[in-house]
Amino acid sequence: MTLLQNSPEKILVPRGFSFAALAAGIKVSGRSDLALAEVSSGGTAAALFTTNRVVAAPVTVGRASLAAAHGRVRALIVNSGNANCATGRSGISGCKRVCRDAAKILGGPPNEIFPSSTGIIGVRFPAEKIQSKLPELIAARSSTVDAAEAFANAIMTTDTRPKIAARRLHVSAKEVTILGIAKGAGMIHPQLATMLVYLFTDLATPAPELKKLLRQACEESLNCMSIDGDTSTNDTVLLLASGASGVSLNNSSTRKKFTTVLMDVCQSLAEQIISDGEGVQHVIRLHIRQARSREEAMTVARTIAHSALVKTAWAGADPNWGRILAAVGRSGVPADPTRVQISIGNQKVCRDGVAVPFDERKAHQTLSEQVSDVYVDLGRGRHSVRFLTTDLTAEYVRINADYST
Amino acid sequence: MTLLQNSPEKILVPRGFSFAALAAGIKVSGRSDLALAEVSSGGTAAALFTTNRVVAAPVTVGRASLAAAHGRVRALIVNSGNANCATGRSGISGCKRVCRDAAKILGGPPNEIFPSSTGIIGVRFPAEKIQSKLPELIAARSSTVDAAEAFANAIMTTDTRPKIAARRLHVSAKEVTILGIAKGAGMIHPQLATMLVYLFTDLATPAPELKKLLRQACEESLNCMSIDGDTSTNDTVLLLASGASGVSLNNSSTRKKFTTVLMDVCQSLAEQIISDGEGVQHVIRLHIRQARSREEAMTVARTIAHSALVKTAWAGADPNWGRILAAVGRSGVPADPTRVQISIGNQKVCRDGVAVPFDERKAHQTLSEQVSDVYVDLGRGRHSVRFLTTDLTAEYVRINADYST
Repeated sequence: MTLLQNSPEKILVPRGFSFAALAAGIKVSGRSDLALAEVSSGGTAAALFTTNRVVAAPVTVGRASLAAAHGRVRALIVNSGNANCATGRSGISGCKRVCRDAAKILGGPPNEIFPSSTGIIGVRFPAEKIQSKLPELIAARSSTVDAAEAFANAIMTTDTRPKIAARRLHVSAKEVTILGIAKGAGMIHPQLATMLVYLFTDLATPAPELKKLLRQACEESLNCMSIDGDTSTNDTVLLLASGASGVSLNNSSTRKKFTTVLMDVCQSLAEQIISDGEGVQHVIRLHIRQARSREEAMTVARTIAHSALVKTAWAGADPNWGRILAAVGRSGVPADPTRVQISIGNQKVCRDGVAVPFDERKAHQTLSEQVSDVYVDLGRGRHSVRFLTTDLTAEYVRINADYST
Repeated sequence: MTLLQNSPEKILVPRGFSFAALAAGIKVSGRSDLALAEVSSGGTAAALFTTNRVVAAPVTVGRASLAAAHGRVRALIVNSGNANCATGRSGISGCKRVCRDAAKILGGPPNEIFPSSTGIIGVRFPAEKIQSKLPELIAARSSTVDAAEAFANAIMTTDTRPKIAARRLHVSAKEVTILGIAKGAGMIHPQLATMLVYLFTDLATPAPELKKLLRQACEESLNCMSIDGDTSTNDTVLLLASGASGVSLNNSSTRKKFTTVLMDVCQSLAEQIISDGEGVQHVIRLHIRQARSREEAMTVARTIAHSALVKTAWAGADPNWGRILAAVGRSGVPADPTRVQISIGNQKVCRDGVAVPFDERKAHQTLSEQVSDVYVDLGRGRHSVRFLTTDLTAEYVRINADYST
């Protein structure tokens, strides 16, 4: 069994990038809360955003800028401590002022500055705090590992550790580097979980091509996980390419190689996010198999992964497969219960929808591990999905019910 | 503000019914776990069942019997302590044997015996324990208040109190009585929540008419609540009419009167079930208004009511409306966030999707009450729904994660 990736990897900085971070006074704690990633020569980019209809100002602005600039991005400005969501027109104009000021200092159009925010929702966006720190932030930028690490730290909210994954691949005599930095789901009053994932690479590729690569890489990794089913208003995944490696995807073997490595980076970040979820004690790799389509497998995976009953059973390492079967039954997928098989680790616990004798102690032990595998076979087809999820613990409730006036 | 109905009402026994209950040794605790409700002259009935595709044996058998007998029901046999679910062919045949034996003793066809089960899932159904107790159970039946109360107690699993609602209405010089008895959502390893609701009346009405009445009454009450979003495999609502009052629904005013009272009984039982939900500290009456259709309002209500983030905020009486807004945004209903209003009690906290200043302390106090009201106006149309739901507490997790080998 592969061990779950839950600590950051060694940082490799792709060529053409520089980073910086500092404390702008947005977080009450005084920790660093403002971060910059810059591509000196300008880069190409593609992004995926939250599917929530309620979106934060930086999502609205960033999406529009990316379209207007035809995927050109000079720099990324991220703040933590304030989500700039449900902040109305003043939130939008504050976000735009930050982009405008950064563009002035760096030189270039404002729509080549990509904004991101994470933190408290419904609180006025303190644009002026960010604006006043921009000159210092931009002046401090560097291409060192330390600077990239500072970036990873500054975007955290309730994450307990930074999330970093890096890979290097060789194409002919050249090197291409991918550096992924993410923040995960953590929320305290009145904050909202946000997943921010930034993928930096020195690949040379036009924006539309990056979009395809990004979609493909996310499909099996970041889109296949859930801590609590609450899609944030700020979720953003950005793939930013400096082109500095001189390597382009002009043949299918290079393309395949790069995609595989990019997917690997995303998978590592997904695992780091999941295992650092709030109150998480157990991570479950949920394997839904024999579905008629991938969408069907995803529907079943999500229903199981969002069931309060299933998740609380996992908190107790309880091999209560009846709750899983019941979740399959109410998923909306017309599965025939008499064809459903459920296994916990390598033990079958339900055959054709009916209880089979199994070693309960062993199943309990399996689920007591930091990571375990649960298999649900629907007996309907040949599609499957691997979905990462977590238990729901009293600690999760404590963190999220903690109301402090 | 109406106080929430959370304790059983005075029992009124409709004419034509008798009840009995005893301990058949299905529950390990030795408490009563087998109950009978009988209509001596035979009654008409209609039932609604779980929408879960995984259904327990008594749901399969009961549905088929009701159809075969054209809605005629002589008696109802309920056991607690074993759900007879995921028990395969032996579960079905065990259920049928119980019905056959009861029919033999009472006289009449087996398909006029309606079976129900609640309790542990995936454990062999102990039909023989029930069969051996049937003569004693049936002999003990009586039309007393005590017997009806014994029935209400015997169907409980982890409910902390019986759930009873009764009403009497006068039609011309005659009286019609409705007695509702329910059990709510409670689950310990490896048990599954089950909602069982039995509505007994001495109204004289054919089965198809009862079906219409039942659908109508449930629509606004039992269908408008959720504790944890996990639909059971055993959920059953049965309306059983003895006809002994001599009152039929031959005019629209009587029909309306009866429907109103039936709905009132269902609403009372819904409130009793909700407030006795596992680990529940706060009940929320969620009012979704200005939706384009009722279905749309229900979708938004369910998304909010099933959000782990929203429910844990409620556990802390935390007026964190951003989580509610985010749930609206991911509900799938194409609501325009800039038209959404949210109020906690009588305080507006979000206007047109944007934070408005409000008294946080007062909102916290509102949500600290046993029951409070949360209003979400979508600004899309004229449909609304009132949905009962609960917080998600550490106690809920404790109860459902409690794995005991």
